[in-house]
Amino acid sequence: MRQTSFADMHCSLARTLEVVGDWWTPLILRDIYLGIDRFADLATDLGLSRNLLTERLTTLVDNGILRRERYRDRPPRDRYVLTDAGLDLVPILVALTAWGDRWRSPDGGPPIQFRHGEHRAKPTVACGTCGEPLTADRITAHPGPGGREAPGTMLIARRLAGPGRPHS
Amino acid sequence: MRQTSFADMHCSLARTLEVVGDWWTPLILRDIYLGIDRFADLATDLGLSRNLLTERLTTLVDNGILRRERYRDRPPRDRYVLTDAGLDLVPILVALTAWGDRWRSPDGGPPIQFRHGEHRAKPTVACGTCGEPLTADRITAHPGPGGREAPGTMLIARRLAGPGRPHS
Repeated sequence: MRQTSFADMHCSLARTLEVVGDWWTPLILRDIYLGIDRFADLATDLGLSRNLLTERLTTLVDNGILRRERYRDRPPRDRYVLTDAGLDLVPILVALTAWGDRWRSPDGGPPIQFRHGEHRAKPTVACGTCGEPLTADRITAHPGPGGREAPGTMLIARRLAGPGRPHS
Repeated sequence: MRQTSFADMHCSLARTLEVVGDWWTPLILRDIYLGIDRFADLATDLGLSRNLLTERLTTLVDNGILRRERYRDRPPRDRYVLTDAGLDLVPILVALTAWGDRWRSPDGGPPIQFRHGEHRAKPTVACGTCGEPLTADRITAHPGPGGREAPGTMLIARRLAGPGRPHS
């Protein structure tokens, strides 16, 4: 389905998707965060083939999102642990989950409820500088130093730099 | 690559991925948000085949993330506009982009810089209830009313409800 590598695109969203944009990957990270961190349990929970799960886990380890940790020596058994980069994705997965709760909630309400300390967590993307919610209408986009005219961002750099640019 | 529908999983993250988890979909939404909202421009910017782009756009319209808007009658020409559900995804895409800036930034720095009013936007997932950042170590997961033991969440419901559950 995918013929192009996103890793070389001059877009941090594309580079993120290269790592976590596979269909199953966010659900694998969800499970590991929730403590379902062993191969057999992941396969059972997700209903995923061993081959596909192996491939996804290997990619995540190679990309520094997960690391393997031996929890038993005989027979050798590993569990998967989120690295700092992986932990840094968790709040975004929670925000995606909250979007799903708002717009795609199954009958019966949210399958999982997140709490933050003693209260219900209400995941909101906010601006760390001022603390206000970061909503689509308040964000403006500007060219950054790493932008390029290349596949995946062929027009963006020029559009953002040009006069009458959107959202500026 | 994908044999399973995520739409029926009792997980709001899976249901979100069913809509926006295709490889190209987040980049299509990125472009439309940035004002690259016409078919030919999207194809040029992303380097995407007409067939694949048509399929993705149709899915996004059918799922209520985008709508078509006629901007010229002769010849008929449409542009794509984010719906409320689509606009609600933008802050999450910006948060994913910021993750990429932190962990996968191309040489030369971020390709796009977002501003929030007059200052640099610093996308952070926060708790809308208390305003504090929502980090992985402060979130706890609990069973919600919509949880089920079914493929995609075969173990999660039991784990979250059981004793010694993780992150509780």
